[in-house]
Amino acid sequence: MKIDVILTGKEVSPEQVKGTAVVVVDVLRATSVIITALKNGAKSVVPVQSVEEALLTKKKLEQVVLGGERKAQKIEGFDLSNSPLEYTHTAIHDKNVILTTTNGTLAITRSSAAKRVLIGALLNATAVAKEAVREDTDIIVVNSGTNGQFSMDDFITTGALIHEMLKEKPYELTDIARTSLFIYESHPDLISYVKEAKHYKVLENLQLEEDLAYCFQKDLLEVVPEYKNGVIRLSENVV
Amino acid sequence: MKIDVILTGKEVSPEQVKGTAVVVVDVLRATSVIITALKNGAKSVVPVQSVEEALLTKKKLEQVVLGGERKAQKIEGFDLSNSPLEYTHTAIHDKNVILTTTNGTLAITRSSAAKRVLIGALLNATAVAKEAVREDTDIIVVNSGTNGQFSMDDFITTGALIHEMLKEKPYELTDIARTSLFIYESHPDLISYVKEAKHYKVLENLQLEEDLAYCFQKDLLEVVPEYKNGVIRLSENVV
Repeated sequence: MKIDVILTGKEVSPEQVKGTAVVVVDVLRATSVIITALKNGAKSVVPVQSVEEALLTKKKLEQVVLGGERKAQKIEGFDLSNSPLEYTHTAIHDKNVILTTTNGTLAITRSSAAKRVLIGALLNATAVAKEAVREDTDIIVVNSGTNGQFSMDDFITTGALIHEMLKEKPYELTDIARTSLFIYESHPDLISYVKEAKHYKVLENLQLEEDLAYCFQKDLLEVVPEYKNGVIRLSENVV
Repeated sequence: MKIDVILTGKEVSPEQVKGTAVVVVDVLRATSVIITALKNGAKSVVPVQSVEEALLTKKKLEQVVLGGERKAQKIEGFDLSNSPLEYTHTAIHDKNVILTTTNGTLAITRSSAAKRVLIGALLNATAVAKEAVREDTDIIVVNSGTNGQFSMDDFITTGALIHEMLKEKPYELTDIARTSLFIYESHPDLISYVKEAKHYKVLENLQLEEDLAYCFQKDLLEVVPEYKNGVIRLSENVV
């Protein structure tokens, strides 16, 4: 069995992911938001591509919270931005969160042909890695990237996940998987690598340092969200 | 001005490379072959996609040598394989080399919309870097990759080129460019990284260790091949 990495959401194709366990990563910040929301009691997170689709989906659901971003900032008329720190128990307990973001939601929906689509970030690195290796299949870590480009923050997170997966089972690594692992293992201080990332600087300029610090806490949460039939809920398999 | 990296030949599009200086890298082994052939006196190298195209092109040219590989091995009826060590002065002086390889020739021909298309490898790292920065434009390093996949050997070579480019001029680096630079700068012994690469192992299994050792000699040759109107010759600009 092998582990491969796809570097941007737009590169994902159904043929590629079919039969595999996919872990989608958008550490800054969509998958960190999803993990936090479900940990704090959201009933579900529904990832959608556009603001229009978000508003249409709202009509079909009850107890809705609208969340997401465009250009890293809150969307007009929405309840919450893409900051995980806003997804508190008070804000989203028992709610259905409809989420639209620039990069992460595309990567998730494009991965839907996979055997399983798990949601990963540093926050749940070990938990999601353990869940992915339960399937005796190839694993693909799908990086959301930033505006269709490779993103250093997702890449080092991928290395962290692969590091944890290899503790569980031996896998063959593709060249890109091996390189992400090297990047992770050579940066005990993850931020020292990520602080040079374009996307990190964008968020820093928006004074979102608290988000950055939050998202880079490895293994803070033990939940594993799973995308199935258009909806993300906590994985049923997790004990 | 910025430096970006495209990770496989198939991802190159005319829109992306238009107006930029492209350096195409297929360190194992197509661009190492091209650099060696032109250094040793070949009149030109004509990169083509298929064996059929190679045979058709042969009819239009004089003094032809057919070179290339499929599955890393010599093509039936061809004069030379894809081993740079075969492209000696005796074998190719004053000849037109028609070259077809699995990865490198695709990356070169797909880059043709760029302002300049230079041919790079470790063998000419500093020379090609200096030539690329002469243009006051963005630079894109196009990795050929291996069978449409990211290849560690091209990636660390890219880091070496960027390392040399930054000695000449300041450039903004994309996340992927920065990561290749990190990989290069953290491996003083390049082979220690590349020995884990899939493609490296393929060549090792074919007992092509001499090729590997040759291709990983940085700055052995000071020539800069350039692709223009379908043909690769030594760059006229180089003093």
